[in-house]
Amino acid sequence: MLPESIQKATESIAQLPGIGPKTAQRLVFFLLKRTSEKNTELSEAIKSLHKDIMRCEVCQNYCETSPCSVCTDPGRSNAQITVLESPIDAINMENTSYKGKYHVLHGVLSPMDGITPQKLGIEKLIDRIKKISEEHVEIILATSPSMEGESTASYIEKQLENQSHIKCTRLARGLPVGADLEYIDEITLQRAFDGRK
Amino acid sequence: MLPESIQKATESIAQLPGIGPKTAQRLVFFLLKRTSEKNTELSEAIKSLHKDIMRCEVCQNYCETSPCSVCTDPGRSNAQITVLESPIDAINMENTSYKGKYHVLHGVLSPMDGITPQKLGIEKLIDRIKKISEEHVEIILATSPSMEGESTASYIEKQLENQSHIKCTRLARGLPVGADLEYIDEITLQRAFDGRK
Repeated sequence: MLPESIQKATESIAQLPGIGPKTAQRLVFFLLKRTSEKNTELSEAIKSLHKDIMRCEVCQNYCETSPCSVCTDPGRSNAQITVLESPIDAINMENTSYKGKYHVLHGVLSPMDGITPQKLGIEKLIDRIKKISEEHVEIILATSPSMEGESTASYIEKQLENQSHIKCTRLARGLPVGADLEYIDEITLQRAFDGRK
Repeated sequence: MLPESIQKATESIAQLPGIGPKTAQRLVFFLLKRTSEKNTELSEAIKSLHKDIMRCEVCQNYCETSPCSVCTDPGRSNAQITVLESPIDAINMENTSYKGKYHVLHGVLSPMDGITPQKLGIEKLIDRIKKISEEHVEIILATSPSMEGESTASYIEKQLENQSHIKCTRLARGLPVGADLEYIDEITLQRAFDGRK
Protein backbone atom coordinates (compact mmCIF):
# COMPACT_ATOMS: atom_id res chain seq x y z
CA MET A 1 0.00 0.00 0.00
CA LEU A 2 2.89 2.40 0.72
CA PRO A 3 4.07 4.34 -2.36
CA GLU A 4 7.45 3.17 -3.63
CA SER A 5 9.24 6.49 -3.02
CA ILE A 6 8.21 6.41 0.63
CA GLN A 7 9.39 2.82 0.97
CA LYS A 8 12.73 3.59 -0.69
CA ALA A 9 13.37 6.64 1.47
CA THR A 10 12.40 4.68 4.60
CA GLU A 11 14.84 1.89 3.72
CA SER A 12 17.65 4.35 2.96
CA ILE A 13 17.17 6.23 6.23
CA ALA A 14 16.89 2.99 8.22
CA GLN A 15 20.47 2.15 7.17
CA LEU A 16 21.78 4.97 9.36
CA PRO A 17 23.14 3.84 12.74
CA GLY A 18 20.69 4.11 15.62
CA ILE A 19 17.66 4.60 13.35
CA GLY A 20 15.24 1.69 13.16
CA PRO A 21 12.50 1.14 10.58
CA LYS A 22 9.81 2.83 12.72
CA THR A 23 11.90 5.95 13.31
CA ALA A 24 12.85 6.00 9.62
CA GLN A 25 9.17 5.96 8.66
CA ARG A 26 8.41 8.79 11.05
CA LEU A 27 11.29 10.81 9.57
CA VAL A 28 10.01 10.22 6.01
CA PHE A 29 6.55 11.52 6.95
CA PHE A 30 8.22 14.50 8.62
CA LEU A 31 10.12 15.18 5.37
CA LEU A 32 6.90 14.92 3.35
CA LYS A 33 5.19 17.44 5.61
CA ARG A 34 7.84 20.16 5.42
CA THR A 35 8.73 22.27 2.36
CA SER A 36 10.56 20.68 -0.55
CA GLU A 37 13.26 23.39 -0.31
CA LYS A 38 14.33 22.09 3.10
CA ASN A 39 14.58 18.56 1.70
CA THR A 40 16.60 19.70 -1.31
CA GLU A 41 18.97 21.41 1.13
CA LEU A 42 19.37 18.21 3.15
CA SER A 43 19.71 16.10 0.02
CA GLU A 44 22.39 18.39 -1.44
CA ALA A 45 24.28 18.54 1.85
CA ILE A 46 24.47 14.73 1.97
CA LYS A 47 25.48 14.47 -1.68
CA SER A 48 28.22 17.07 -1.43
CA LEU A 49 29.98 15.32 1.48
CA HIS A 50 31.97 12.93 -0.69
CA LYS A 51 32.43 15.56 -3.40
CA ASP A 52 33.86 18.29 -1.16
CA ILE A 53 35.56 16.36 1.62
CA MET A 54 38.92 14.62 1.23
CA ARG A 55 41.56 13.33 3.60
CA CYS A 56 44.47 15.67 4.30
CA GLU A 57 47.63 14.22 2.69
CA VAL A 58 49.60 14.97 5.86
CA CYS A 59 47.35 14.17 8.83
CA GLN A 60 44.54 12.18 7.13
CA ASN A 61 41.88 14.32 8.84
CA TYR A 62 38.85 15.36 6.78
CA CYS A 63 39.34 18.70 4.97
CA GLU A 64 38.23 20.64 1.92
CA THR A 65 41.76 21.56 0.76
CA SER A 66 44.79 19.34 1.35
CA PRO A 67 47.00 19.89 3.36
CA CYS A 68 44.37 20.97 5.88
CA SER A 69 44.19 24.23 7.81
CA VAL A 70 45.66 22.63 10.96
CA CYS A 71 48.68 21.17 9.13
CA THR A 72 49.46 24.49 7.43
CA ASP A 73 48.87 26.67 10.52
CA PRO A 74 52.20 28.34 11.39
CA GLY A 75 50.91 29.00 14.91
CA ARG A 76 50.79 25.29 15.75
CA SER A 77 53.78 23.32 16.98
CA ASN A 78 55.36 20.75 14.66
CA ALA A 79 56.92 19.00 17.63
CA GLN A 80 53.65 17.59 18.97
CA ILE A 81 51.42 15.16 17.12
CA THR A 82 48.32 13.67 18.68
CA VAL A 83 47.36 10.34 17.11
CA LEU A 84 43.59 9.82 17.03
CA GLU A 85 41.17 7.09 16.06
CA SER A 86 38.59 9.30 14.38
CA PRO A 87 38.05 12.85 13.10
CA ILE A 88 35.43 13.42 15.83
CA ASP A 89 38.22 13.09 18.42
CA ALA A 90 40.04 16.00 16.76
CA ILE A 91 36.97 18.18 17.24
CA ASN A 92 36.95 17.32 20.94
CA MET A 93 40.71 17.94 21.26
CA GLU A 94 40.22 21.40 19.74
CA ASN A 95 38.16 22.28 22.83
CA THR A 96 41.24 21.75 25.02
CA SER A 97 44.32 24.00 25.18
CA TYR A 98 46.21 21.74 22.73
CA LYS A 99 48.15 23.65 20.06
CA GLY A 100 50.03 20.89 18.26
CA LYS A 101 49.09 18.85 15.20
CA TYR A 102 47.07 15.69 14.58
CA HIS A 103 47.18 12.38 12.83
CA VAL A 104 43.90 10.56 12.26
CA LEU A 105 44.08 6.77 11.85
CA HIS A 106 40.40 6.30 10.87
CA GLY A 107 40.24 3.14 12.96
CA VAL A 108 42.23 0.91 15.29
CA LEU A 109 44.24 -2.27 14.69
CA SER A 110 41.98 -5.31 14.59
CA PRO A 111 43.61 -8.24 12.76
CA MET A 112 40.42 -10.30 13.16
CA ASP A 113 38.54 -7.77 11.01
CA GLY A 114 41.46 -7.42 8.59
CA ILE A 115 42.48 -4.00 9.89
CA THR A 116 46.26 -4.16 9.68
CA PRO A 117 48.94 -1.45 10.20
CA GLN A 118 49.00 -1.08 6.40
CA LYS A 119 45.26 -0.36 6.27
CA LEU A 120 45.61 2.37 8.90
CA GLY A 121 48.63 3.86 7.11
CA ILE A 122 50.83 3.58 10.21
CA GLU A 123 53.97 3.38 8.04
CA LYS A 124 53.13 6.80 6.62
CA LEU A 125 52.64 8.14 10.14
CA ILE A 126 56.05 6.79 11.25
CA ASP A 127 57.66 8.37 8.18
CA ARG A 128 55.96 11.65 8.99
CA ILE A 129 57.19 11.55 12.59
CA LYS A 130 60.77 10.63 11.64
CA LYS A 131 60.93 13.59 9.25
CA ILE A 132 60.17 16.13 11.99
CA SER A 133 63.26 18.31 12.35
CA GLU A 134 62.57 19.60 15.88
CA GLU A 135 64.98 18.53 18.61
CA HIS A 136 62.33 17.04 20.90
CA VAL A 137 59.20 15.46 19.53
CA GLU A 138 56.17 14.34 21.52
CA ILE A 139 53.72 11.84 20.09
CA ILE A 140 50.50 11.76 22.13
CA LEU A 141 48.87 8.39 21.49
CA ALA A 142 45.25 9.31 22.16
CA THR A 143 43.50 6.15 21.01
CA SER A 144 40.55 4.91 23.12
CA PRO A 145 41.23 3.03 26.35
CA SER A 146 39.80 -0.13 24.73
CA MET A 147 41.80 -3.30 24.01
CA GLU A 148 42.18 -2.42 20.33
CA GLY A 149 43.00 1.19 21.13
CA GLU A 150 45.70 0.14 23.60
CA SER A 151 47.31 -2.33 21.21
CA THR A 152 47.28 0.24 18.40
CA ALA A 153 49.09 2.69 20.69
CA SER A 154 51.60 0.01 21.76
CA TYR A 155 52.26 -0.90 18.12
CA ILE A 156 53.04 2.70 17.19
CA GLU A 157 55.18 3.15 20.29
CA LYS A 158 57.22 0.09 19.35
CA GLN A 159 57.91 1.47 15.86
CA LEU A 160 59.41 4.57 17.45
CA GLU A 161 61.37 3.07 20.36
CA ASN A 162 64.87 3.52 18.84
CA GLN A 163 64.39 7.24 18.32
CA SER A 164 65.74 8.92 21.44
CA HIS A 165 64.41 12.40 20.55
CA ILE A 166 60.86 11.08 20.24
CA LYS A 167 58.79 10.69 23.40
CA CYS A 168 55.49 8.83 23.29
CA THR A 169 52.82 9.73 25.84
CA ARG A 170 49.28 8.54 26.54
CA LEU A 171 46.35 10.55 27.87
CA ALA A 172 46.08 10.33 31.66
CA ARG A 173 43.77 7.72 33.14
CA GLY A 174 41.72 8.46 36.19
CA LEU A 175 38.38 9.67 37.42
CA PRO A 176 36.31 11.71 34.99
CA VAL A 177 35.25 15.13 36.28
CA GLY A 178 31.96 14.93 38.19
CA ALA A 179 32.18 11.17 38.69
CA ASP A 180 30.90 9.57 41.85
CA LEU A 181 33.55 7.33 43.45
CA GLU A 182 30.85 4.87 44.41
CA TYR A 183 30.04 4.07 40.78
CA ILE A 184 33.56 4.00 39.32
CA ASP A 185 34.66 0.60 37.96
CA GLU A 186 37.62 -1.06 39.71
CA ILE A 187 40.08 -0.83 36.78
CA THR A 188 39.57 2.93 36.47
CA LEU A 189 39.89 3.26 40.24
CA GLN A 190 43.11 1.20 40.27
CA ARG A 191 44.57 3.40 37.52
CA ALA A 192 43.50 6.57 39.27
CA PHE A 193 45.18 5.23 42.45
CA ASP A 194 48.37 4.24 40.60
CA GLY A 195 48.55 7.63 38.93
CA ARG A 196 47.93 9.66 42.12
CA LYS A 197 50.01 12.81 42.64
CA MET B 1 38.20 23.92 12.18
CA LEU B 2 35.36 21.75 10.79
CA PRO B 3 35.08 21.86 6.98
CA GLU B 4 32.03 23.77 5.77
CA SER B 5 30.38 20.80 4.04
CA ILE B 6 30.50 18.82 7.28
CA GLN B 7 29.02 21.73 9.21
CA LYS B 8 26.25 22.23 6.66
CA ALA B 9 25.32 18.54 6.60
CA THR B 10 25.35 18.43 10.41
CA GLU B 11 23.00 21.43 10.62
CA SER B 12 20.65 19.98 8.01
CA ILE B 13 20.46 16.60 9.74
CA ALA B 14 20.01 18.21 13.16
CA GLN B 15 16.75 19.75 11.91
CA LEU B 16 15.15 16.31 11.85
CA PRO B 17 12.94 15.52 14.87
CA GLY B 18 14.66 13.58 17.65
CA ILE B 19 18.16 14.18 16.27
CA GLY B 20 20.35 16.55 18.26
CA PRO B 21 23.59 18.21 17.12
CA LYS B 22 25.81 15.43 18.59
CA THR B 23 23.85 12.63 16.88
CA ALA B 24 23.83 14.65 13.65
CA GLN B 25 27.61 14.94 13.78
CA ARG B 26 27.98 11.21 14.37
CA LEU B 27 25.69 10.53 11.40
CA VAL B 28 27.74 12.84 9.14
CA PHE B 29 30.95 11.01 10.04
CA PHE B 30 29.16 7.72 9.37
CA LEU B 31 28.13 9.03 5.93
CA LEU B 32 31.71 10.11 5.19
CA LYS B 33 33.01 6.66 6.06
CA ARG B 34 30.69 4.68 3.81
CA THR B 35 30.70 4.64 -0.01
CA SER B 36 29.51 7.67 -1.93
CA GLU B 37 27.04 5.47 -3.86
CA LYS B 38 25.09 4.77 -0.68
CA ASN B 39 24.93 8.50 0.05
CA THR B 40 23.79 9.31 -3.47
CA GLU B 41 21.03 6.74 -3.00
CA LEU B 42 19.93 8.36 0.28
CA SER B 43 20.19 11.85 -1.19
CA GLU B 44 18.11 10.91 -4.25
CA ALA B 45 15.52 9.13 -2.11
CA ILE B 46 15.03 12.27 -0.02
CA LYS B 47 14.90 14.54 -3.06
CA SER B 48 12.37 12.42 -4.93
CA LEU B 49 9.86 12.43 -2.05
CA HIS B 50 8.27 15.75 -2.98
CA LYS B 51 8.68 15.03 -6.70
CA ASP B 52 6.93 11.65 -6.72
CA ILE B 53 4.49 11.88 -3.84
CA MET B 54 1.21 13.78 -3.98
CA ARG B 55 -2.04 13.77 -2.01
CA CYS B 56 -4.83 11.63 -3.39
CA GLU B 57 -7.63 13.93 -4.67
CA VAL B 58 -10.23 11.71 -2.98
CA CYS B 59 -8.81 10.62 0.39
CA GLN B 60 -5.83 13.02 0.76
CA ASN B 61 -3.51 10.13 1.61
CA TYR B 62 0.00 10.16 0.07
CA CYS B 63 0.21 8.39 -3.28
CA GLU B 64 2.13 8.33 -6.55
CA THR B 65 -0.95 8.45 -8.81
CA SER B 66 -4.19 10.17 -7.85
CA PRO B 67 -6.75 8.76 -7.04
CA CYS B 68 -4.75 6.30 -4.97
CA SER B 69 -4.78 2.51 -5.11
CA VAL B 70 -7.06 2.26 -2.06
CA CYS B 71 -9.66 4.69 -3.47
CA THR B 72 -9.76 2.86 -6.82
CA ASP B 73 -9.76 -0.67 -5.34
CA PRO B 74 -13.09 -2.31 -6.34
CA GLY B 75 -12.60 -4.85 -3.53
CA ARG B 76 -12.95 -2.22 -0.81
CA SER B 77 -16.28 -1.03 0.54
CA ASN B 78 -17.47 2.46 -0.33
CA ALA B 79 -19.79 2.45 2.65
CA GLN B 80 -17.05 2.69 5.27
CA ILE B 81 -14.64 5.60 5.60
CA THR B 82 -12.10 5.81 8.40
CA VAL B 83 -11.06 9.38 9.15
CA LEU B 84 -7.40 9.61 10.25
CA GLU B 85 -5.05 12.28 11.49
CA SER B 86 -2.00 11.16 9.54
CA PRO B 87 -0.91 8.81 6.74
CA ILE B 88 1.04 6.69 9.28
CA ASP B 89 -2.30 5.77 10.89
CA ALA B 90 -3.47 4.35 7.55
CA ILE B 91 -0.44 2.03 7.49
CA ASN B 92 -1.35 0.76 10.95
CA MET B 93 -5.02 0.33 9.99
CA GLU B 94 -3.93 -1.80 7.02
CA ASN B 95 -2.60 -4.35 9.52
CA THR B 96 -6.13 -4.86 10.85
CA SER B 97 -8.97 -6.61 9.04
CA TYR B 98 -10.42 -3.29 7.83
CA LYS B 99 -11.51 -3.33 4.18
CA GLY B 100 -13.13 0.08 3.77
CA LYS B 101 -11.65 3.37 2.60
CA TYR B 102 -9.79 6.23 4.28
CA HIS B 103 -9.72 9.96 4.62
CA VAL B 104 -6.54 11.57 5.92
CA LEU B 105 -6.91 14.99 7.57
CA HIS B 106 -3.15 15.68 7.90
CA GLY B 107 -3.71 17.21 11.32
CA VAL B 108 -6.36 17.96 13.94
CA LEU B 109 -8.39 21.05 14.67
CA SER B 110 -6.41 23.53 16.75
CA PRO B 111 -7.78 27.08 16.42
CA MET B 112 -4.92 28.41 18.63
CA ASP B 113 -2.41 27.30 15.97
CA GLY B 114 -4.64 28.50 13.14
CA ILE B 115 -5.69 24.99 12.13
CA THR B 116 -9.32 25.51 11.15
CA PRO B 117 -11.82 23.12 9.50
CA GLN B 118 -10.97 24.85 6.19
CA LYS B 119 -7.26 24.05 6.60
CA LEU B 120 -8.02 20.35 7.18
CA GLY B 121 -10.43 20.27 4.22
CA ILE B 122 -13.30 19.01 6.36
CA GLU B 123 -15.86 20.56 3.99
CA LYS B 124 -14.48 18.38 1.18
CA LEU B 125 -14.70 15.32 3.44
CA ILE B 126 -18.37 16.09 4.25
CA ASP B 127 -19.10 16.52 0.54
CA ARG B 128 -17.39 13.20 -0.18
CA ILE B 129 -19.44 11.44 2.51
CA LYS B 130 -22.76 12.96 1.38
CA LYS B 131 -22.14 11.77 -2.19
CA ILE B 132 -21.86 8.12 -1.15
CA SER B 133 -24.77 6.30 -2.77
CA GLU B 134 -24.84 3.27 -0.42
CA GLU B 135 -27.88 2.88 1.79
CA HIS B 136 -25.99 2.71 5.07
CA VAL B 137 -22.72 4.56 5.56
CA GLU B 138 -20.34 4.23 8.50
CA ILE B 139 -17.82 6.93 9.24
CA ILE B 140 -15.17 5.69 11.71
CA LEU B 141 -13.70 8.77 13.37
CA ALA B 142 -10.26 7.40 14.29
CA THR B 143 -8.53 10.57 15.45
CA SER B 144 -6.27 10.28 18.52
CA PRO B 145 -7.82 10.16 22.00
CA SER B 146 -6.30 13.60 22.71
CA MET B 147 -8.30 16.78 23.36
CA GLU B 148 -7.73 18.04 19.80
CA GLY B 149 -8.45 14.62 18.32
CA GLU B 150 -11.71 14.36 20.25
CA SER B 151 -12.90 17.82 19.26
CA THR B 152 -12.03 17.16 15.61
CA ALA B 153 -14.13 13.99 15.72
CA SER B 154 -17.00 15.85 17.43
CA TYR B 155 -16.86 18.61 14.84
CA ILE B 156 -17.14 16.13 11.96
CA GLU B 157 -19.92 14.21 13.72
CA LYS B 158 -21.88 17.44 14.12
CA GLN B 159 -21.64 18.21 10.40
CA LEU B 160 -23.24 14.85 9.67
CA GLU B 161 -25.93 14.69 12.34
CA ASN B 162 -28.93 15.36 10.05
CA GLN B 163 -28.06 12.47 7.73
CA SER B 164 -30.02 9.48 9.05
CA HIS B 165 -28.26 6.95 6.77
CA ILE B 166 -24.81 7.97 8.08
CA LYS B 167 -23.59 6.46 11.35
CA CYS B 168 -20.49 7.87 13.04
CA THR B 169 -18.43 5.55 15.26
CA ARG B 170 -15.24 5.96 17.30
CA LEU B 171 -12.55 3.35 18.00
CA ALA B 172 -13.21 1.50 21.25
CA ARG B 173 -11.47 2.76 24.42
CA GLY B 174 -10.12 0.34 26.95
CA LEU B 175 -7.06 -1.53 28.09
CA PRO B 176 -4.35 -2.08 25.48
CA VAL B 177 -3.37 -5.72 24.96
CA GLY B 178 -0.64 -6.81 27.37
CA ALA B 179 -1.20 -3.87 29.72
CA ASP B 180 -0.75 -4.29 33.45
CA LEU B 181 -3.84 -3.09 35.33
CA GLU B 182 -1.60 -1.70 38.06
CA TYR B 183 -0.07 0.85 35.71
CA ILE B 184 -3.16 1.92 33.76
CA ASP B 185 -4.18 5.58 34.22
CA GLU B 186 -7.54 6.22 35.86
CA ILE B 187 -9.26 7.76 32.81
CA THR B 188 -8.45 4.72 30.65
CA LEU B 189 -9.60 2.45 33.47
CA GLN B 190 -12.87 4.37 33.87
CA ARG B 191 -13.52 4.07 30.13
CA ALA B 192 -12.67 0.38 30.13
CA PHE B 193 -15.09 -0.05 33.04
CA ASP B 194 -17.85 1.96 31.32
CA GLY B 195 -17.42 -0.02 28.13
CA ARG B 196 -17.38 -3.45 29.77
CA LYS B 197 -19.25 -6.24 28.05
